[in-house]
Amino acid sequence: MKGWIGKVLRVDLTKGEWKTEELDKDMASKFIGGRGLGSKILFDEIDPKVDPFSPNNKLIMATGPLTGTSASAAGRYMVITKSPLTGTIACSNSGGHFGAELKFAGFDLIIFEGKAKEPVYLYVEDGKVEPRDAKAIWGKTTHETTDQILSETDMDARVSCIGPAGEKLVKYACIINDKHRAAGRSGVGAVMGSKNLKAVAVKGSGSVTIADKEAFRKATLDGFQKIKANPVTSEGLPAYGTCVLVNIINTSGIFPTRNFQQSVFEGAEKISGETLADDILVRNRACFACPIACGRVTKVKNPKYEYFGEGPEYESDWSMGGCCGVDNLDAIGKANYLCDVLGFDPISAGVTIACAMELFEKGILSTKEIGRSLNFGDADAMLEMVRAIGYREGFGDALAEGSYRLAEKYGHPEFSMTVKKQEFPAYDGRGAQGMGLQYATSNRGACHVRGYMTSPEILGSPQKLDPFETEEKAGWLKIFQDLTAVVDSAGICLFNTFALGGPEILEYLKAATGIQMSLDELMKTGERIWNLERLFNFKAGLTGKDDRLPDRLLKEPVSSGPAKGRVVELAKMLPEYYELRGWDKEGQPTKARLKELGLV
Amino acid sequence: MKGWIGKVLRVDLTKGEWKTEELDKDMASKFIGGRGLGSKILFDEIDPKVDPFSPNNKLIMATGPLTGTSASAAGRYMVITKSPLTGTIACSNSGGHFGAELKFAGFDLIIFEGKAKEPVYLYVEDGKVEPRDAKAIWGKTTHETTDQILSETDMDARVSCIGPAGEKLVKYACIINDKHRAAGRSGVGAVMGSKNLKAVAVKGSGSVTIADKEAFRKATLDGFQKIKANPVTSEGLPAYGTCVLVNIINTSGIFPTRNFQQSVFEGAEKISGETLADDILVRNRACFACPIACGRVTKVKNPKYEYFGEGPEYESDWSMGGCCGVDNLDAIGKANYLCDVLGFDPISAGVTIACAMELFEKGILSTKEIGRSLNFGDADAMLEMVRAIGYREGFGDALAEGSYRLAEKYGHPEFSMTVKKQEFPAYDGRGAQGMGLQYATSNRGACHVRGYMTSPEILGSPQKLDPFETEEKAGWLKIFQDLTAVVDSAGICLFNTFALGGPEILEYLKAATGIQMSLDELMKTGERIWNLERLFNFKAGLTGKDDRLPDRLLKEPVSSGPAKGRVVELAKMLPEYYELRGWDKEGQPTKARLKELGLV
Repeated sequence: MKGWIGKVLRVDLTKGEWKTEELDKDMASKFIGGRGLGSKILFDEIDPKVDPFSPNNKLIMATGPLTGTSASAAGRYMVITKSPLTGTIACSNSGGHFGAELKFAGFDLIIFEGKAKEPVYLYVEDGKVEPRDAKAIWGKTTHETTDQILSETDMDARVSCIGPAGEKLVKYACIINDKHRAAGRSGVGAVMGSKNLKAVAVKGSGSVTIADKEAFRKATLDGFQKIKANPVTSEGLPAYGTCVLVNIINTSGIFPTRNFQQSVFEGAEKISGETLADDILVRNRACFACPIACGRVTKVKNPKYEYFGEGPEYESDWSMGGCCGVDNLDAIGKANYLCDVLGFDPISAGVTIACAMELFEKGILSTKEIGRSLNFGDADAMLEMVRAIGYREGFGDALAEGSYRLAEKYGHPEFSMTVKKQEFPAYDGRGAQGMGLQYATSNRGACHVRGYMTSPEILGSPQKLDPFETEEKAGWLKIFQDLTAVVDSAGICLFNTFALGGPEILEYLKAATGIQMSLDELMKTGERIWNLERLFNFKAGLTGKDDRLPDRLLKEPVSSGPAKGRVVELAKMLPEYYELRGWDKEGQPTKARLKELGLV
Repeated sequence: MKGWIGKVLRVDLTKGEWKTEELDKDMASKFIGGRGLGSKILFDEIDPKVDPFSPNNKLIMATGPLTGTSASAAGRYMVITKSPLTGTIACSNSGGHFGAELKFAGFDLIIFEGKAKEPVYLYVEDGKVEPRDAKAIWGKTTHETTDQILSETDMDARVSCIGPAGEKLVKYACIINDKHRAAGRSGVGAVMGSKNLKAVAVKGSGSVTIADKEAFRKATLDGFQKIKANPVTSEGLPAYGTCVLVNIINTSGIFPTRNFQQSVFEGAEKISGETLADDILVRNRACFACPIACGRVTKVKNPKYEYFGEGPEYESDWSMGGCCGVDNLDAIGKANYLCDVLGFDPISAGVTIACAMELFEKGILSTKEIGRSLNFGDADAMLEMVRAIGYREGFGDALAEGSYRLAEKYGHPEFSMTVKKQEFPAYDGRGAQGMGLQYATSNRGACHVRGYMTSPEILGSPQKLDPFETEEKAGWLKIFQDLTAVVDSAGICLFNTFALGGPEILEYLKAATGIQMSLDELMKTGERIWNLERLFNFKAGLTGKDDRLPDRLLKEPVSSGPAKGRVVELAKMLPEYYELRGWDKEGQPTKARLKELGLV
C-alpha cells in the first residue's frame, strides 16, 4: 500500500496481548484513514450503547495516508472512541510529531481494547511492541510523564499521554502528545485513563511510501506556494497565532462573553493575539511538516502566574478569558498551561467554570458549595477552579463533570452552554447563523472544527456570506462538514483549508495513495464518514431531537453589538439541512441515502 | 539591541569561572555576528601564532543577528578558533537547533578560554551557567553524549559536543550538535577536545527581538516565496538533498575521482541523490526555520553496514565515494554515520584515505604500515580506516593527521589534495576555473563554501558562466566571497543564496537589527570580514605563497570527460584577484585598503 503503512496494531489491555493486522485496503479507500477509518472500525467493533468507561469501549489512535508525508501540515493523528462527555462518537485531532512517528514506527492505527489491571504504557519501536509498567508515573503531569518515558525508552521517541485529569476520569480529559499538542475534546483522555493506559511512546526508522512521487512533489509544491500566498496562512496565523481571531470575532459581535450573556467583550484587546505577541510571545512553533507555525511558545514572568510553555490558542484564550469575563492574559496563559500539564480540554473547562460563575452570580450556587466566591472577571478564582478540576479536588470534582451535568445537578440546565453535553467554542451562533446550524448538527456536540462556517461567514473565505442570513447556509454547511471529514481523515491540518480546497487535497491524496478518484467521489467519501458518525450516534440512542441548541441561543436575543437582537433561527435551517443530507424529517438517515453511500 | 541578544558569555576553563559581558554594539554593526564578529574577537584576543592546542587559543561559539528568527533557514551558529589542521583562522558553520537555542538561553556568543583540568561540559539555561563534570561521558560517542546530557539537564535542551575524535585531537575533528549537524571543517572539535570541553548544552525561554516587525514579516514572506519559486530550493534540494549534485557535477566532468586522478566517476549513478532517494532515504529533515529540508534521514538494512541516521551529504558521499573509487552507497552511508558519531569531518577523512589509497597503489605505503591492503574501490577497507581514524587506532593514527601530513611523512606531499593543508571538497577546479581560484584563495584552506562559484559556473545561478573561462572569474569570486561572509555572519544558511541575493538578505538584516545600510555597505562589510581573516592568517605566518594549489591541479591535465586536457590556470587569475582586492602583488592587503575597510 502507498500512503498507508498497511499495518494495524491491536492491543488487548486486559490480557496484555497484541497482534498486528493487515489494513483492509478496501475499507481504507472507502474511509481514507484517521477519523473516517477509525470511526468505521469503532462502528463495526463496539456496541454504540456501551458505557464509555467500560472495558468494552475501545480507544483507537489513527493516522491518515498523508500523515508523516511532506504534504503541508501533515502531522495529524486522531483518537476515536465513544465519548464519556457526550455519549456520541468522539474523534479528537492533534498535531505535533506523534502521528508521523507512529507511522514511522510501522503502524497506521492502534486499537486499544479492554482494560489493564494496573497502569501501563505502550512502547512501539519499528514494529516491536512492549507494554511497560506505568505505576511509577501514574499521577504525574503530562510533562513529567513525557520526560520520564523518553529517558526510559529512546530520546528520539514521541509520547502521547494523559495527566492526572485523565486518570481521574475528568469528563473532558484530553491526551497530550509532544508535551503541548492535544487530542483535546470530548474526553478521549478519560477513556484512556479508564483503561489504565498512561501513555503511548513510538519511535521508528520507517517512512511513508508515495505512489506517484513526481505528482506528489508537484502537489506539495503547489500547496506550499498557495499557503505562502494566502494572507491567513502566511501572515495572520504566523504573526498572531489563532488568537488573531480575538479582535476579528469580537468586532463581529459574536465573541461569547460571561457564559454567552453578552456577545462583545470589553476586555478583548487585552487578550488579543496582538497583545499576546507583544507581551508574552517567545516564539512560534510548527508541527510536523507545517509551513504555517501558528503555535505560540509563551512565557509569563509575573511570579503569580509564572510559566513557560505553549498557548493559549484562540479557544482557550476565550474560554478562560471572555467566557469567564477575565481580561488578564497572564492568568489565562497560566490556566491554559495547567490544562496542558494536568491534561484536560480548556474549552470545556472554561465554559464549565463560566456556567458555575453564572450560577453563583444568580445565587443558585453559593460559597458553601464552591468553597469561595466565583464571580465573572475573577482571574484568580478561575485559575483556582482550573487547578481543582485537574485533580478533582473540592468543587473541581463537580466542575470535572462538565457544564451540563453541573447545571442539571443544581436544577438549571438552561445555563449550560452545550450541545449534546459538549461545551461551545468561541463563536456565538446568534450572530453567525451557519455556525448555529453547525453546532446543532455536529456529531460530537458543540464544535467549531466540524465544518468551520466562520471561514465564509466572518473571514470571507472562500467567499463572504452574510452571517445573519439563514438562506443557503445548510448547503454551505454540508460541503464544509463533508470536506472537513476528508481533511481530518487524510491526516493534514484543517488550517490548510484557508489556502487549499477540495481540488488541492484531492491531488495530495491521489498522488500519495495512487487511488484515482474524482472530486465528487472525494466529497462523497466525506459524506459517507459524516453519515457513519450519525449512524453511530443514533444507535447509541441519540435522535434528531439532540440537534438542538440551548434556549439562550434560540430565545434570548443578543443584548448589544453588531448581532444585537438576533437569535439562532435554527427552525428555518434544520429542515433544509435534513433534506440536503437525504435524511427524513426526524433527522434519521434514509435507507436510500445510506445505500447510495455504501453504508448498508 | 535588536536581532542580537546583546550578551556574550566568557568562560575561563582553566579557572572554572565565567562572566557575562555586554556585546559591543559598534563591533556588532561592523562585523554583523557569527563568523565576522567571532573572527574579530579572535583576532583581537589571541596571538595568531599561538599553538592551536595551547590553552591560549580560544574557541568561540557565535550566532548571528538572524539566528533564531523566522528568517528562512536561520538556524546557523559558527565555531571560530585557530585551526590545528591549517594553522589559519577557522570558522565552521552548523545548522540544526543549537544556535537558535543558544540565543534563547540568553547569549549571542560564548568565548571559551584556557583548558579545564578535567573533562567538563557547560550547561546554560536562561542566563544561568553551570560547568559540570564530564568524566563519565568522556570517550562516549556524540549520540551517547547527547542523550546522557539531555537526561542530566533538560529534555528540551540542545547539545553540541565532541566525540572520541575530538578528544583524541584528530586534526579534522568536528563538533556535532543536535546529533546530526556538524561544525565540520578545520578541526574545531580537536581544539574543543584540547580544552577538555566535552559538550555545551543550552536551553532557553528567551527569544529574539526584532527591530521592525512589519518590515521583517514582509522580508521573511518574500524570502519564503522566492525559495518556493526557485527550482533548486523548492525541488532539487528537497527531493534529493545535496546529493542532487552527484550526477550534475559528474556530468560536468569535475567530480574528482580516485584522489583527483580522474574527474569523472563511472560509479556516480550508484551513489547519486536519485539512488539515495530510492534505496536508503527514510525522510527529509529540516533545520530550525528551514523551508528547504535538505537533510536526509537514511537507513541501511544490510547487516554489514546497518545504521539509522542522517546523511550522507554530497560532500561525504563524494569523499568516501568517488574520491576513494567506492560506489557502494550502503558503505558510504555507514562511513558518514561513523563520522557523525565519532565526530570528525568526512571530507578530510575521505580525501585523506584516498591519498593513502594512492600511496598504497603507487607502492609508497604497504600492508606493513597500513595493516591491510588499501585499494581504490575497496569499500570495506575505506570503512575500516574511517573507524580507525575516530579512535586513532593503528594506521588511523597517521590518517588522523590529514592528507598533507600523511603524504609528507611518506615523502610525497604532491599526492596530498589540499590547500593550506585542508582537503579539497567535491569539485575539480580544473574544469571550473573560478572554483580553482576560490580554493587557492580561501582563508581556511580548500573549501567550497567560501564563495560558491559552482553556482554560476555549473548551476547557472544567478547567471551561467563558462566554467573553462578564466576571464572575469576574479571579480565574480570576490563578490561571492564577500556575500558569503555576510550570509554566514548573519546566521542564515548559505543555501538561501540559490534563491535570495544581497538585496533580500539586506532586508532581513535591516528589519531585524534596525541598522540602516546600503547594499554597498553590506558588501563592504563582507569584504571587511574577508580581509580580517586574511590579516589573521598573515600574522600567523602565512603569505601569498600559500594561495597555491597542488601540482596535480596546476600541471596534470584532466585525463578524460568534458574537462579533458585542462588545468587550473591560476597564474592568469590570481594577479587580477589580488588587484581587485586592493592587495599588493604578494597578496598582502595594502594599508590603503585596510584603512578604507576600517581595519587599521
